[in-house]
Amino acid sequence: MQDNLITPTPSAYTYPLLVKQLLTNSQCLYGDQEITYRGELRYSYRTFRQRIGQLASALAALGIQHGNTVAVMDWDSHRYLESYFGIPMMGATLFTVNVRLSAQQILYTLNDSGAEVVLVHSDFLPLLEEIRAELQSVRQVVVIADGQAVPQTGFAVAGEYEALLDRASPDFAFPEFDEHTRAATFYTTGTTGDPKGVSYSHRDIVLHTLTTGMALSAPRAGQRLHREDVYMPITPMFHVLAWGMPYIAVTLGLKIVMPGRYAPDVLLKLHDTERVTFSHCVPTLLQMLLQASEGGMVDLSGWKIIIGGSALSPALCEAALARGIDVFAGYGMSETGPVVSLAQLPPKFRPSNRQEEVRMRCSTGRPVPMVDFRIVDDQLRDVPRDTKAQGEIVLRAPFLTQGYFKKPEASEALWEGGYLHTQDVAVMGPDGFVQIVDRIKDVIKTGGEWVSSIEVEQLIAEVPGVLESAVIGVRDAKWGERPMAFVVRKTGSHVKAETIREHLLLVDAKRISKYAVPELDRIAFVAEIPKTSVGKINKKVLRNNAA
Amino acid sequence: MQDNLITPTPSAYTYPLLVKQLLTNSQCLYGDQEITYRGELRYSYRTFRQRIGQLASALAALGIQHGNTVAVMDWDSHRYLESYFGIPMMGATLFTVNVRLSAQQILYTLNDSGAEVVLVHSDFLPLLEEIRAELQSVRQVVVIADGQAVPQTGFAVAGEYEALLDRASPDFAFPEFDEHTRAATFYTTGTTGDPKGVSYSHRDIVLHTLTTGMALSAPRAGQRLHREDVYMPITPMFHVLAWGMPYIAVTLGLKIVMPGRYAPDVLLKLHDTERVTFSHCVPTLLQMLLQASEGGMVDLSGWKIIIGGSALSPALCEAALARGIDVFAGYGMSETGPVVSLAQLPPKFRPSNRQEEVRMRCSTGRPVPMVDFRIVDDQLRDVPRDTKAQGEIVLRAPFLTQGYFKKPEASEALWEGGYLHTQDVAVMGPDGFVQIVDRIKDVIKTGGEWVSSIEVEQLIAEVPGVLESAVIGVRDAKWGERPMAFVVRKTGSHVKAETIREHLLLVDAKRISKYAVPELDRIAFVAEIPKTSVGKINKKVLRNNAA
Repeated sequence: MQDNLITPTPSAYTYPLLVKQLLTNSQCLYGDQEITYRGELRYSYRTFRQRIGQLASALAALGIQHGNTVAVMDWDSHRYLESYFGIPMMGATLFTVNVRLSAQQILYTLNDSGAEVVLVHSDFLPLLEEIRAELQSVRQVVVIADGQAVPQTGFAVAGEYEALLDRASPDFAFPEFDEHTRAATFYTTGTTGDPKGVSYSHRDIVLHTLTTGMALSAPRAGQRLHREDVYMPITPMFHVLAWGMPYIAVTLGLKIVMPGRYAPDVLLKLHDTERVTFSHCVPTLLQMLLQASEGGMVDLSGWKIIIGGSALSPALCEAALARGIDVFAGYGMSETGPVVSLAQLPPKFRPSNRQEEVRMRCSTGRPVPMVDFRIVDDQLRDVPRDTKAQGEIVLRAPFLTQGYFKKPEASEALWEGGYLHTQDVAVMGPDGFVQIVDRIKDVIKTGGEWVSSIEVEQLIAEVPGVLESAVIGVRDAKWGERPMAFVVRKTGSHVKAETIREHLLLVDAKRISKYAVPELDRIAFVAEIPKTSVGKINKKVLRNNAA
Repeated sequence: MQDNLITPTPSAYTYPLLVKQLLTNSQCLYGDQEITYRGELRYSYRTFRQRIGQLASALAALGIQHGNTVAVMDWDSHRYLESYFGIPMMGATLFTVNVRLSAQQILYTLNDSGAEVVLVHSDFLPLLEEIRAELQSVRQVVVIADGQAVPQTGFAVAGEYEALLDRASPDFAFPEFDEHTRAATFYTTGTTGDPKGVSYSHRDIVLHTLTTGMALSAPRAGQRLHREDVYMPITPMFHVLAWGMPYIAVTLGLKIVMPGRYAPDVLLKLHDTERVTFSHCVPTLLQMLLQASEGGMVDLSGWKIIIGGSALSPALCEAALARGIDVFAGYGMSETGPVVSLAQLPPKFRPSNRQEEVRMRCSTGRPVPMVDFRIVDDQLRDVPRDTKAQGEIVLRAPFLTQGYFKKPEASEALWEGGYLHTQDVAVMGPDGFVQIVDRIKDVIKTGGEWVSSIEVEQLIAEVPGVLESAVIGVRDAKWGERPMAFVVRKTGSHVKAETIREHLLLVDAKRISKYAVPELDRIAFVAEIPKTSVGKINKKVLRNNAA
């Protein structure tokens, strides 16, 4: 058996997949294309490319070299877009700091990442100032004053962003290096433990751009991105490389609108004046946009918006569709590139009713090209594609995180058996549509069946007199686990456990199996349900109390 | 300086870019999608995937292993499509034999490639029989009888294609291997020397699929491929992997129509009955299709056709547009993947007149994403993008041939200076549109200017009484080279050299510089112009005669 590898001619250019190569096409073809910051500042891709060179020259003058980490704390600006390219292109690592974390968490991530320089907007300087004494690797900050004076600070200030760029040469010679070089890093927070560092290589970013770009471009019409779209992110640039979309937009040479700090009226104004046609955001933001534009004369029709971060509810989807927004869900995690599936309507699909269409748009979606998207049991065997059989989503794709930064055990758990484990429990239909039903740690495993705690909660919510409920699995000698429901009554209600159990037993067997119905003594009425800091039900507390 | 490479977690799947991964998405989502052979045979992608497994099992049973070469000689069939996947996926090399070459050239290529097994359609068996005694590596043939009896042959016949597949298991375990493994090979013929073997790795094929797929999908409307298109190649599958299009079609899960042996009436019938919307071919074939459908009731509107192989003439483009065909040119070479540019109309372009639109559709086009497409002088410096300055097209892209098979000198010449040299001379406009004006060896270098021999020939053709002409460069002590024209008069014409020279001197300076006009004693009248076997002007003979 021969290895049969192709040996390149000595002079041949072997083309590493580097972030800088994503600029090649738009530089050649779309030099006059526009990038604007809030509609207030406006420049061409040609200037964008020059400023990327200036940023790299300025950072090199501060001693930043291949392998160093540069942190960014800014609103969604043209500067952030410049850092997405300039920092990785010089061989350094872009660290997108989550400015919504606590000062202590930010301290942990900055120290863990080894960041040496921070590009920080004046608005976030006080936050950084709080932890200044404990920062271990940061030696200098570049202040983004955004047209204002640079505030007083105890940090060594290398200069103001624009002033530094002004003095720097656009002719930085971006080097060639291994495509597996770390390009970007950020931290993901779970309910337990310290934030975990996730990294992407240049190759990961390029392949995510190409495959997700192809998935977004390929539909005949609807839920698609094309070369005449105007792109405005409404996802913070620190959130999973804003889902990889800025790289796709630049590769396609689109007009880009960076909205700065999010305010619904500003976003709506920019949508109108800049003729924005493509965005992505979390459900809450879409809700805010709909509310802010309610009753007014604002035309939102034709706006294509991908929803990620959390599930798109049918009600919100309906409300957006009613305003003419082409809204659809996308799925991924910090660890997955991130986009691995999109809820685009399938080829030739003509919805027979609005409900069916809404269900599809709100689903977890269908896998993008080259993503091996499996739903498996605990032996890594595929479950049937019948929209009923539940299993964990596990993935292979050319752009997944290869492990957490300095966390070998968590990394091994993530990649157990050679598949990335999402910990999301889902079902898949014959048409390839996936629907997440629960997080794996919340699923109740009873007598060999998997019961979605969320599904049981939704059914309990239908019972008159119920305000809310939380369902967890509790140990059971015979069944392994059994569901247990904690129910909060509405004020004045006297709803009984019997009523709840009867309702669950009577509903359509398609929606719930009889194994999913808690016994009478496992339906407990409580005054309130414990919640996490972001308002999600804290099942960990419930499980500890029940144990 | 740290290397800053991302080290994968031991359990992580590092995802080599392999041809088999292109099937992942369509297998998951488009299992019911259709592939048809001439409208006579019809099966699903699910069956397609099973037959790929059966083909690999059958070849393995014949002793084919990783690193072996399997040659294919067939019309454009579903079997050819199966071989595009099954052979590379098992780690072997697919060799697409150019059945239009002479028997002696085919002999050379089969021996040079080391092919061990040939999948051969009965129609090509006589051709193979001619050279049987001289074949050095071929041990067995698999006959594709296409429903007929297997003809008598002196070869060791392993079996008939369908019979072998019938007996073979679909459950072939396609292995993982290095993405730089040779996946496919074929031969390119020049005017001199033996055919040269060109190879593509799995990585090359995947990256060509993604970048060209993105370029084809991304336009808002027109000159694009989308998920509801029906694809029919009209380019022989042995011609540069049919330009890479079958891989794109399968990745997007399109309905595929394999037309078998080309006959204009069959192609037109399939276009109609199978509702074909996307094809690609050489100009001659488009001409044949237009002629065959002339005056009839055949509706060709909405058919998107990429033209490659040779230049799309404005007259043919006009004729196709008049029939409602969305025709546009693509550019590439055997060595370039092949697609590196596409003559798609630019975003927001609304043609002011038909002539402008035709000029764009007939041009060499604009580069696809990630292709570093340069037009340079002989010092590798970019020439101005003013549609006038001529230079050679040189390329970097993630899918170019890394060299010729066992031809180190030709490989080094191809990659001189780290750029792939196309030997095509072109101009580029500020809008990124490229127009090839000549082959580099035919360009006349006179007093520091580059003169396109083709442009001078086209102008001479405008002079009444001229049948055709050929222009070459001849040595000149003062200017380095000077143009020399060989002109054939029409029967009965007495057109003089003075008339030709006057015409050239009078035409718009935008079309030709005065350096491009041959002196009177360098305009020679001849009875005929020497031609190559494919009907092109043989300038080598002219140069030898003139020397």
